[in-house]
Amino acid sequence: MAANSTHTRVRKAAVRLFAAKGYHGVGIRELAEAAKLSSASLYHYMGTKEELLADIMWDCLERLLSAAMLATTDVQDPQEKLGRLAALHAIAHAAQAKETAVVDNELRALSPKLRRRIIKQRDAYEGLWAEALDEGQQAGVFLPDEHGITRRALLEMCSGVARWYSPRGPLTLRELGSRYATLTLRAAGAGPNPPEPDMERCRTIVRYTWGTKV
Amino acid sequence: MAANSTHTRVRKAAVRLFAAKGYHGVGIRELAEAAKLSSASLYHYMGTKEELLADIMWDCLERLLSAAMLATTDVQDPQEKLGRLAALHAIAHAAQAKETAVVDNELRALSPKLRRRIIKQRDAYEGLWAEALDEGQQAGVFLPDEHGITRRALLEMCSGVARWYSPRGPLTLRELGSRYATLTLRAAGAGPNPPEPDMERCRTIVRYTWGTKV
Repeated sequence: MAANSTHTRVRKAAVRLFAAKGYHGVGIRELAEAAKLSSASLYHYMGTKEELLADIMWDCLERLLSAAMLATTDVQDPQEKLGRLAALHAIAHAAQAKETAVVDNELRALSPKLRRRIIKQRDAYEGLWAEALDEGQQAGVFLPDEHGITRRALLEMCSGVARWYSPRGPLTLRELGSRYATLTLRAAGAGPNPPEPDMERCRTIVRYTWGTKV
Repeated sequence: MAANSTHTRVRKAAVRLFAAKGYHGVGIRELAEAAKLSSASLYHYMGTKEELLADIMWDCLERLLSAAMLATTDVQDPQEKLGRLAALHAIAHAAQAKETAVVDNELRALSPKLRRRIIKQRDAYEGLWAEALDEGQQAGVFLPDEHGITRRALLEMCSGVARWYSPRGPLTLRELGSRYATLTLRAAGAGPNPPEPDMERCRTIVRYTWGTKV
């Protein structure tokens, strides 16, 4: 239990510092101080700074992937699939803005071996988006996505909420998710008024995966 | 002339280092070495590290704003306006990926006074997007953009090309711009097959503003 809470404390401090100053801007001593540990204890609990970064990224992508799988398994309709993926992605990036910023900005900081591991996992996640887009295209509800441009554009759009969303603003996470599902489906070619995905289901998944109320 | 080329050299080195390591990850000595200057000369040419960062951001936004003004002045059709804005934004972010990454990621590094200056300029630029969206909504070709969500989502989508576009990939800058115009117009509610904006005009503006062939 003690090790576990130390682990959590270090993770939180690292996410906060990496998000604020960038990976290269944070020294081991600063990290240890923020986590209220000595540098040696930090190493004992977390390994190197790079391993700590890779751990944070892995964990963040793992949750995103598992939420996306929960949301799309057994869903036949490609519009429902893509809508749910977009809603969850936007909500996750709004609710976990610092973690996702670290994943999005610091991949360059990892050495090739660790980077490959993280990229493989990111590819698995993005593969679910590609699948929904392909199925929708085959069903004639989405327009062709040559070279994966639509997929990349939509992922960047939904990730972007991490840069501007504020829980103190006029928009709840649920409204945010629903609006991003609409924008995503429209951009994929579903027409101006696509159906809203099952936001109740998304709400349950967000709560289960991130412990966040939506 | 000598001062001017030194200026350019320092700028280039700073953009490269800030984009690779983050503003806080780059020391003055490292910056001076990369620009082949002493720390004192660096200060003489560029002022503080923070002033250098603000200069880079200002310049990048200034070009974006001037290109957007050139592209939209005297254009009546809101679809044409928004399509051109999206194409130019995507092309600029693909062709100037490092500069735009610095603008997008390092605003937090500026002190309040400098930050306000940069935000004011960014707001002027984003105001042109808001105008095109408003006009399109009033003309009934776009759907309502409550709380500016569509504007933010589309800007993030188009900025995102800086993270993945490669000039060695299958897509030319011109094709990229055209595809992003389509995605943007669809997401705004223009229907699945919006008209392509005047890409010849965009090409001329890109060449004039950034010296980049499209």
